Amino acid sequence: MSRSSAPPVRLLGGGDAVLAFDIGGTHIKSTAVDRDGRIDAVRRTPTPRGAEAVVATIAELARAHGGRDGFALRLRSVGVGVPGLVDESSGVVRYASNLGWQDVPLRQLLEDELGLPVAVRHDVRAAALAESRIGAAYGHASAVVVAIGTGVCGALVIDGVPYSGGGYAGEIGHAVADPAGERCPCGAVGCLETIASASSIVRRYAAASGHPVRGAREVLDAAQRGDRLAAAVWADAVTALAQGIARLVAAFAPHAIVVGGGLAQAGEALIGPLRSQLDQLLSFHRRPFVLSARCGEDAGVVGAAITARDHLRVLRAVADDPR
Amino acid sequence: MSRSSAPPVRLLGGGDAVLAFDIGGTHIKSTAVDRDGRIDAVRRTPTPRGAEAVVATIAELARAHGGRDGFALRLRSVGVGVPGLVDESSGVVRYASNLGWQDVPLRQLLEDELGLPVAVRHDVRAAALAESRIGAAYGHASAVVVAIGTGVCGALVIDGVPYSGGGYAGEIGHAVADPAGERCPCGAVGCLETIASASSIVRRYAAASGHPVRGAREVLDAAQRGDRLAAAVWADAVTALAQGIARLVAAFAPHAIVVGGGLAQAGEALIGPLRSQLDQLLSFHRRPFVLSARCGEDAGVVGAAITARDHLRVLRAVADDPR
Repeated sequence: MSRSSAPPVRLLGGGDAVLAFDIGGTHIKSTAVDRDGRIDAVRRTPTPRGAEAVVATIAELARAHGGRDGFALRLRSVGVGVPGLVDESSGVVRYASNLGWQDVPLRQLLEDELGLPVAVRHDVRAAALAESRIGAAYGHASAVVVAIGTGVCGALVIDGVPYSGGGYAGEIGHAVADPAGERCPCGAVGCLETIASASSIVRRYAAASGHPVRGAREVLDAAQRGDRLAAAVWADAVTALAQGIARLVAAFAPHAIVVGGGLAQAGEALIGPLRSQLDQLLSFHRRPFVLSARCGEDAGVVGAAITARDHLRVLRAVADDPR
Repeated sequence: MSRSSAPPVRLLGGGDAVLAFDIGGTHIKSTAVDRDGRIDAVRRTPTPRGAEAVVATIAELARAHGGRDGFALRLRSVGVGVPGLVDESSGVVRYASNLGWQDVPLRQLLEDELGLPVAVRHDVRAAALAESRIGAAYGHASAVVVAIGTGVCGALVIDGVPYSGGGYAGEIGHAVADPAGERCPCGAVGCLETIASASSIVRRYAAASGHPVRGAREVLDAAQRGDRLAAAVWADAVTALAQGIARLVAAFAPHAIVVGGGLAQAGEALIGPLRSQLDQLLSFHRRPFVLSARCGEDAGVVGAAITARDHLRVLRAVADDPR
């Protein structure tokens, strides 16, 4: 489930030329966007250990992306997606277990290194921004983007802007799904992630069947061949996701639910049952469209590019304001 | 549980003189606010049947509130709180079961009748606005106000503005609490409201014990005297509320949770266990303050007054904008 089923959208529209990075636990994805909105080929570079080494790698990548066309790109700003607990207003990564980071002032470090304005955004909120502006949620005034992979994470997008909640919002994978369930590594009990993430599906099927599997896709395939244990594990995941989404619908009433991440590669085998269970769970609530993510695995880095452009607009608006 | 334990706050601060109404199923509450922010005594008038009769009653009340000081008040606008499904941008009440209304263009009807700008807001969102600006949530950048009475309803307040979601947001009483629970009158199964509303506490205790009771207070009193059935019904309500709030914290990360409505009259007997259970349910999440509502039973009409003032600010900003 590592490749996207839908091709990433390649054209962002006219605007500033920017650099974009998506810092993951294993790879840094990087690209540049020119003034016509053309997105350069996305590079993948192994993520080095430590924030200083990451900053140095990003500086090299910046030269590589910006240098190819010499000064023609006229890069104006940089957007960075990063996992963990990210305070987007200060650009500080409070905690990122994948990276082993704590209280890293990423924006400041990168601005000092690159000499360009830098905006930092949580990676799932960056991906959600891409889905909202040019992907599945395009045209919907509000959306919840649910990324299901190793974990389960969400992003609420209101009027085209991901809601950050000081970095704490969108943690729907760590909302209680089964109060009598297992303890989550986060410390809480019965988190949605312990039932519905791709890795939990793998783990739960292996524990129930005694057969280790490599990925959630294998569990789905087994379920579709009539393996009852696999079907039960898959059904538990879909039910927990549907209930979690139904609760978001009650509280927040998004126009669209966009399902992405590795597990979404299952396509209609996931989206179909999810849609019909959600329909059963709702009554007078506003029924959202339930859609597959469209920006693929590069959604995060594309969202980082949009973040970089949005940041410039804010900087200019502040500079222009006569007050 | 019909009186507020805390006295309503009486001073809104300087601004426009406005009229405010809170249309309930049995009473219309009304008041006026002068330019110094003094809130007139709140009147209660029985709610007549039908939207036309309600508009006529409001017109009479407007004369009564505005007339006492003659033209001295210089009323500029009107705010109205109303239950049900309320589209605040159009001022249309889509559906209000308590009032028997469907698709009532309340703002238009009142503007035609009163000759003043009118703003309409859902009653719980109006109460939440009051708690945010002058009540328990004052000084908190975001809050969820939970009103627990006949039903359970919430309002998300972001930067001092209740989030409406086209009228559909905040329906946390109709989020699934127990997937194996009873069917809710709304049509869904196991809604939080079927376990944790004051009326559900009364109904569930009567069903379990065979003793009809008049209010949730009696169930709490019985629980505190050692009645095990009463204690179990009360504990179920607190647990379901704590789980529902924990899920909101994961998704939305509000700085404060404000608990109001009739059941909140129980004070620490409700808030104490709620706070400690919520603490148990959370891990890395941002822990919100859990606070009792402070604006009392007049929160709705006070919030309607703030709504009226805010509406004028928006109208003036639009008029001043050179674009």
